Amino acid sequence: MKDLVSLALKVEGGRLLVLDQTLLPDAESWLDGSDPDAMVGHLQRLSVRGAPLIGVAAALSLAALSEAGADEARLRAAAASLRAARPTAVNLMWALDRMLRVLDAGGGAADLAREAEAIFDEDVRLCEAMAAQALPLFDRGEAVLTHCNSGGLATAGVGTALGAIRRAWEAGKVVHVYADETRPLLQGSRLTAWELQRLGIPYTLLTDSMAAILLRDGMVQRVLVGADRVARNGDFANKVGTYGLAVNARHHGIPFHPVAPFSTVDLACPDGAAIPIEQRAPEEVRGFGTLRWAPVGSPVFNSAFDVTPAKLVTSMVLDRGVYTAEQLAAGALGV
Amino acid sequence: MKDLVSLALKVEGGRLLVLDQTLLPDAESWLDGSDPDAMVGHLQRLSVRGAPLIGVAAALSLAALSEAGADEARLRAAAASLRAARPTAVNLMWALDRMLRVLDAGGGAADLAREAEAIFDEDVRLCEAMAAQALPLFDRGEAVLTHCNSGGLATAGVGTALGAIRRAWEAGKVVHVYADETRPLLQGSRLTAWELQRLGIPYTLLTDSMAAILLRDGMVQRVLVGADRVARNGDFANKVGTYGLAVNARHHGIPFHPVAPFSTVDLACPDGAAIPIEQRAPEEVRGFGTLRWAPVGSPVFNSAFDVTPAKLVTSMVLDRGVYTAEQLAAGALGV
Repeated sequence: MKDLVSLALKVEGGRLLVLDQTLLPDAESWLDGSDPDAMVGHLQRLSVRGAPLIGVAAALSLAALSEAGADEARLRAAAASLRAARPTAVNLMWALDRMLRVLDAGGGAADLAREAEAIFDEDVRLCEAMAAQALPLFDRGEAVLTHCNSGGLATAGVGTALGAIRRAWEAGKVVHVYADETRPLLQGSRLTAWELQRLGIPYTLLTDSMAAILLRDGMVQRVLVGADRVARNGDFANKVGTYGLAVNARHHGIPFHPVAPFSTVDLACPDGAAIPIEQRAPEEVRGFGTLRWAPVGSPVFNSAFDVTPAKLVTSMVLDRGVYTAEQLAAGALGV
Repeated sequence: MKDLVSLALKVEGGRLLVLDQTLLPDAESWLDGSDPDAMVGHLQRLSVRGAPLIGVAAALSLAALSEAGADEARLRAAAASLRAARPTAVNLMWALDRMLRVLDAGGGAADLAREAEAIFDEDVRLCEAMAAQALPLFDRGEAVLTHCNSGGLATAGVGTALGAIRRAWEAGKVVHVYADETRPLLQGSRLTAWELQRLGIPYTLLTDSMAAILLRDGMVQRVLVGADRVARNGDFANKVGTYGLAVNARHHGIPFHPVAPFSTVDLACPDGAAIPIEQRAPEEVRGFGTLRWAPVGSPVFNSAFDVTPAKLVTSMVLDRGVYTAEQLAAGALGV
């Protein structure tokens, strides 16, 4: 494979390295992801996360395994393990399907490497395309609110929602970003704040429960979020908290936009009810990391994602266009 | 003073002890609150919290100081310090005003003790009155959702919202309680879960951001919350997150009820905009306790409370009656 570099993933001399996002913002530590078995662990522990990035990382890991001499049976088994690592984000399945089609066509290690590199390069371009599609939405001087992390740490490029916000800030349109901390895994506090600080974009961190105040008081003019899977009718799954935020945005008349690449659209899902939602371990809600603050053994509800219906979307930004709720309802994503 | 005992406060041989709620659920440690200067610290660090309880605790602390021989000037200075400790909950001001009226009338230590004891005893009775008013609201077999802590740890009695839920569970009406963890200080995880576990009430803990899923999926039939200050028109301040939850309850057609004693109603506040809202330290949002997960020095928005307009209330439960949004708008609380 050729050398590649993004904020949270790099290929150096054929070796795939991924940034351990569980250690941010305090430590920048890189893990080897050349072995798909190790990559499955990185994905499940969320060392590597972000719907587009997990697709890119899985493809590169499979290519690295092929370069290391694995046979086709081993590659197919590795692809199956990677596919099962996270159930909600469809980009993972999409990227692995591309790799498997190369295998089906009798491709070898060089072909798999080229396909994985293409998935990486495309993701970079898709981020720029989403940002370009989103740019006309912003008025000058806007403050925006985002949830979870959808930036350079979630993609191979500048990001989806946070990438669009970054480019709009560089264009002088966005002037301030409010970031939900995003319980339970705190991707807003740990990752989005870290990215915004690095970029020098003025920001303010808040608990998820405080967002409604900003929406009511006119402190934000727009909400942008990523997406882990978009159904054919425009309903979409994203990090838990997105749905309640969308309800609040609608109540307060604040425009609300999911931003995603076309690889996030799953035409096989007719609507949000068909999207599988990952349930995660109770420890994530009982505390954070090694710290526990709830009583030992507290019963917990821990849905990692929720589904926002397309009717709560002002418009959905894809790399190929911007779609209003009416266009989504009319089947703009596919039939 | 006579001996008194509640879940989080006791008087033993004239000495006032308060449970350090910052150490729950893992340690039950009692602090001396006989000195109002120490009590101010306990209130500000939220070792003692819950709108009704902070009023009771402040009154008892002042009575203890008087029994220790303090003169009137010292008592008035202590009352002023206590009053300034937490700006939003009006019960604190209400309880101190009662104590100061005794001083104004020339009362001595015995009179102040009697007044503080009366405030304690009344709070116990008010909790039962609220629970009795709320009971007819519940249908059999309901699951309910609550935010923050409004139970025995927040009052001298069974609680406000959580007290009503407890009595409805004992009556066989409520069968399950969902508890928001309540960031940033996690009173839901640390305190409400602890109380529910002690009482044997079946419960499930969730992050604040997951509540919308329960409301959408019919997993809860009713939302009950406490209140820190109720304005004359029925708008009320409560722990941050209450407002966004009320918006979501309305969106999903789920009944929403604040529960409070009359001492929480501030007739001098015409509406929610007149309620002072406490802003707290950024460290509370950057992490929890000694653990920090956001970048060092991250700019933070940390409003401890938010205001829910009366129009989002299905009905408000006071000890003296249950008031619908229409009745609140028509001036049911006072003119």
